Amino acid sequence: MFGKRIKKLQLLLDKEGLDSALITHKSDIFYYTGFDAEEGAFLVINTGRPKLLVSPLLNEAENVKNVDVFFYNKSEDIQKQLNGVVGFDESSLKAGLFLRLKKKAKLKKAKDIIKKPRELKDVYEIEQIKKGIKINKKILNELDILGRRENAIAREIEIKMLEAGGEKAFDIIIASGKNSSYIHYKPKGRIVRKNGLIIVDFGARLNNYCTDMTRAFCFNPGKKEKGILDDVKNMQEELIEKVCAGINFKQLQNLYSRLMGKKGYKTMHSVGHGVGLDVHERPAIGDTLKENMVITIEPGIYIKNFGGCRIEDMILVKKGKAKVLS
Amino acid sequence: MFGKRIKKLQLLLDKEGLDSALITHKSDIFYYTGFDAEEGAFLVINTGRPKLLVSPLLNEAENVKNVDVFFYNKSEDIQKQLNGVVGFDESSLKAGLFLRLKKKAKLKKAKDIIKKPRELKDVYEIEQIKKGIKINKKILNELDILGRRENAIAREIEIKMLEAGGEKAFDIIIASGKNSSYIHYKPKGRIVRKNGLIIVDFGARLNNYCTDMTRAFCFNPGKKEKGILDDVKNMQEELIEKVCAGINFKQLQNLYSRLMGKKGYKTMHSVGHGVGLDVHERPAIGDTLKENMVITIEPGIYIKNFGGCRIEDMILVKKGKAKVLS
Repeated sequence: MFGKRIKKLQLLLDKEGLDSALITHKSDIFYYTGFDAEEGAFLVINTGRPKLLVSPLLNEAENVKNVDVFFYNKSEDIQKQLNGVVGFDESSLKAGLFLRLKKKAKLKKAKDIIKKPRELKDVYEIEQIKKGIKINKKILNELDILGRRENAIAREIEIKMLEAGGEKAFDIIIASGKNSSYIHYKPKGRIVRKNGLIIVDFGARLNNYCTDMTRAFCFNPGKKEKGILDDVKNMQEELIEKVCAGINFKQLQNLYSRLMGKKGYKTMHSVGHGVGLDVHERPAIGDTLKENMVITIEPGIYIKNFGGCRIEDMILVKKGKAKVLS
Repeated sequence: MFGKRIKKLQLLLDKEGLDSALITHKSDIFYYTGFDAEEGAFLVINTGRPKLLVSPLLNEAENVKNVDVFFYNKSEDIQKQLNGVVGFDESSLKAGLFLRLKKKAKLKKAKDIIKKPRELKDVYEIEQIKKGIKINKKILNELDILGRRENAIAREIEIKMLEAGGEKAFDIIIASGKNSSYIHYKPKGRIVRKNGLIIVDFGARLNNYCTDMTRAFCFNPGKKEKGILDDVKNMQEELIEKVCAGINFKQLQNLYSRLMGKKGYKTMHSVGHGVGLDVHERPAIGDTLKENMVITIEPGIYIKNFGGCRIEDMILVKKGKAKVLS
């Protein structure tokens, strides 16, 4: 499996005129080698055997198969393993190391090619995401929200993910009342009341694969709350209907903005994103959707000092009608 | 509190000949503003009011006090808020953004000055660390290890941290038998047996402050296991004895290497590190210890294909005898 993935990247390197790739993001390193380290690891892929460069603290790397393992103490030890024109990942390589390596190595932005092979999910990957979603659904079914503190609910969800053998894929959002107008809100001590909108945005990560779902509620909706909930629901349905291989994510974004504008709402964020080893990954707005990409569709309406609503589902892109996983 | 911290940094900027600091690490942003976001936030500190630059997803930032909040969509929006010679944090600024900002801004490595004010802990900070250690000790007292899988033990510890209102400060290490020869080991399905060394390295994070402790055991130690456990214990006692304000961390590292060498062991890692908002922070090897720094002392012995032992405690540096917190 890793060999196939590496070959894909080698082809892309060749096409891009790069001699090697310096891989610095943990999810990419995991994708190409199966080695899972929070930090301190670098992977160099060229036409030969991949080189895994690790801090001496990561001596467990000696068990990684099909790579040559090198221990580094300083940036020169990393630089020595680079050859020719080196594509680097501008979104994870740190400026300090970049400046030190640049003194001797020929560094060039790798653009999207390091992460590109990750955008199409294979059967195993889709299976892990499905299992993660199963955990989410079970938690959601058992969840008591009313009368409890936002942060206590978030903590309970996280504990249940761990009990199910997973972990949280990102910081869980429980936003109630006015707080639901904040998009990436951090749960606090507010008690969830009957009145007011509630956003529950969470996802388990299982065997390194992330999930991402959002549900919105109101226990005692007034006219305004009901209107917002319905608008988001209808928009999401219309958007999901359009998801298929061949469409560009930008077209979906444009449709989303149009639908929002028609109702008089301001578009506050992207219509969705790819999900996999990272909770936000390719494809992004601007990419053409392909079969076996996994994306979210998550329209949201946010009204300052009132509240917000977002509904988010995970979608498996197919040639015809897309499959809603969540 | 934030005003005092910012003033400290402003003095350091002035001394270093920098007009402003571009702060990109989440712990630094939290330290200077109280705003806690996983990603998407940048802080600019110059002689005026601090500027908090956030992605539109972080609209909750409008509640942050004593800063001017700006929303950015592209790197130009960030660049516009920079003035004069800008000190940047080379260990967290990403190469891509660095290259884009560099086109118009005068960027200069800020060296250690952004993080320097964090090295001395105040009463509140020490209190949070003490509370976190209390959680660790309670968990340790209740922990059943023998006959259970490494990853199940790690999961249980993490759940107990959440139940206590905290979270894990870093990936928990439960390494048994030969696995304990791996320093930053990822727990797996191995069952902990009577024979063989066991390393338990964990720490709760409470109110953003990290703790970090390691205990080593053997339920049925042979002569070799007992020798290693005793050697580490004795070394740690001798090292802690030497911790005081005025000594350089390098002197402790040298003593550690000497003690290891005398017994015929190879030194595999640092003798310790600072702990605070990050689990690894200043002071580092080479820094002079000062009163109210919080550090770890963690000698470790690792023997390939056999096992390892590390004992780690958290120490509050004092002018006289240091205080062991854990």
